Amino acid sequence: MAAVKETSKFSETYPMKGGDGPNSYANNSTLQKGYVDAAKERLSKAVAEKLDVDVLLSSNTFCIADLGCSVGPNTFIAVENILEAVEFKFQSQGLNSQIPEFQVFFNDHTLNDFNRLFKSLPQTKRYYAAGVPGSFYGRLFPNASIHFFHSAFALQWLSRVPKQVVDKNSSAWNKGRIHYSNSTDEVVRAYEAQHAEDMECFLNARAQEITDGGMMVLVIPGRPNTLPHSDSLVNVCYQLIGSCLMDMARKGLVSEEKVDTFNIPVYTMTSQELEAAYLTLRFLPLSLQSNLYLTHARAAFEEVIKQQFGKEILDELFDSYLKKLEEQPSIIASGTETAIIFLAVLKRK
Amino acid sequence: MAAVKETSKFSETYPMKGGDGPNSYANNSTLQKGYVDAAKERLSKAVAEKLDVDVLLSSNTFCIADLGCSVGPNTFIAVENILEAVEFKFQSQGLNSQIPEFQVFFNDHTLNDFNRLFKSLPQTKRYYAAGVPGSFYGRLFPNASIHFFHSAFALQWLSRVPKQVVDKNSSAWNKGRIHYSNSTDEVVRAYEAQHAEDMECFLNARAQEITDGGMMVLVIPGRPNTLPHSDSLVNVCYQLIGSCLMDMARKGLVSEEKVDTFNIPVYTMTSQELEAAYLTLRFLPLSLQSNLYLTHARAAFEEVIKQQFGKEILDELFDSYLKKLEEQPSIIASGTETAIIFLAVLKRK
Repeated sequence: MAAVKETSKFSETYPMKGGDGPNSYANNSTLQKGYVDAAKERLSKAVAEKLDVDVLLSSNTFCIADLGCSVGPNTFIAVENILEAVEFKFQSQGLNSQIPEFQVFFNDHTLNDFNRLFKSLPQTKRYYAAGVPGSFYGRLFPNASIHFFHSAFALQWLSRVPKQVVDKNSSAWNKGRIHYSNSTDEVVRAYEAQHAEDMECFLNARAQEITDGGMMVLVIPGRPNTLPHSDSLVNVCYQLIGSCLMDMARKGLVSEEKVDTFNIPVYTMTSQELEAAYLTLRFLPLSLQSNLYLTHARAAFEEVIKQQFGKEILDELFDSYLKKLEEQPSIIASGTETAIIFLAVLKRK
Repeated sequence: MAAVKETSKFSETYPMKGGDGPNSYANNSTLQKGYVDAAKERLSKAVAEKLDVDVLLSSNTFCIADLGCSVGPNTFIAVENILEAVEFKFQSQGLNSQIPEFQVFFNDHTLNDFNRLFKSLPQTKRYYAAGVPGSFYGRLFPNASIHFFHSAFALQWLSRVPKQVVDKNSSAWNKGRIHYSNSTDEVVRAYEAQHAEDMECFLNARAQEITDGGMMVLVIPGRPNTLPHSDSLVNVCYQLIGSCLMDMARKGLVSEEKVDTFNIPVYTMTSQELEAAYLTLRFLPLSLQSNLYLTHARAAFEEVIKQQFGKEILDELFDSYLKKLEEQPSIIASGTETAIIFLAVLKRK
């Protein structure tokens, strides 16, 4: 067997979540919990209708993996929802006595705080737990070993910032901005290409790791098909943060060069792009209204911004960000049209 | 499925290894590396002679678990040795093309530093890695899911201090001592009973988790069959530490009550006890000479002593411990007779 290179081509320099502060992911994750709860019903329905019990009965362990799990508690809630749905499926088929044991793999970047995750595992959990460090854009599990993949609010993160956008000599250099969505065509294309490559890597890896008949549920923030990148609510928020950073650079509070070399590796996909990536795999999209990103921005980005600029600037940056938001109430008002969440249910053919 | 209670009856208050200091486990683990290296040849031989390839060919993944893995690097070396031995076995049978993928589960207490472990995973590893938090005296894995168990320098740790020895109202109260080996019969019996119970829990859990034909290799520090508890080299070292602590209590440097409520939950078993625990399972003992525990004491116990007494006392305690050792050169000289390491190779019938 060749060496398993899980992350060699994928940067691990952008831990997407974490931290302990009042604006940390864990303390703000109740915002995402709403989506986990909303997804529960769809997930249960998909399992009830689509899960192939015959295939699953061939194994005495049902293996679940949550990709981009962070430190909890949302990952525990999602896993419990899956477990309940699978148990209910067995019961509804009169197979109560054949409900398998469950093993759950919690995956996130190597820099994720697995110590914290492990300490907060539910006391009453009904599964064997394991942590799996590494990028989900590479292989994480043996062939045909996972029955159910779940990932929520993780796939919008690219594996890395496209190289060209931080290269002064490239026509795609993203000077004075921190995101592609308000930038030149070259920068947009560099992000689009990175996203397409990442999705292919993700789906290829999962296609090998998932069992025949296995299922995958993905919750991904996205944008409507006809909406330009620049008008997507989440992208507008990134633009505002970039604009605040440039204001601070002009005041000499942060280095302009640091802004030039900083890009948020997040891509906001459409359902068409999602479908194109899945090709012929089964795919049920669901849209939910959202304006969570407005206040959520600090929780999501505090860590990556701190790494680049230092923690001293955080309060001033997000204060000015919230001020800019207040000056443009139409951004919040338009949230119901410009921010959507996809719930994709896929099944291995 | 009932809730998986991995640790409810087993204390997790004694992280056996860890720390960052110059006397930490990680920095002193070269002392144990010698045993891992010495075990390699025996392990390879056991795999070559005893591993049942037919059974293993039925799975496309070979699962290895290291119990009590700490933070590395010894666990990585042990795993690599196992992997090489299994690959060689396949090759020697002309089954080169059927070598499976490998998945490795690194287990230790929930308080183990898994973040550090994950960050130091070898770049060139040829397996899928996962961390499994929890006491190995309870269930950690699904039924029949592990092909090869390994555990080195971990099974001498009891799941907890026997309750009676810290109970003022019990006849087994271990006042003025921190170990059973120089204590009353009641205290010795309490430790013996805890050890027997722990070994039964350990073997019962592993018997369910191991595949048919699976193997288990255990490296355990022990004592010769005819040697009294009090004369075992490792136990003499514990007695010396206890004596140093009582000296410090008399000087008012530590609280005597804290010494009375502190007991090292380590049991030094004989090969007879080991065999009795394994009952009819296949068992090949190997003894190696050792005097490592003399200098190793600080690395092994710094953490538990710090928890009870605070880190301020560590330097004085271990200085006085080393002085006492020097005053009794016969202890070191007798090490070759009073300290042995078992290598037990077991196979699931």
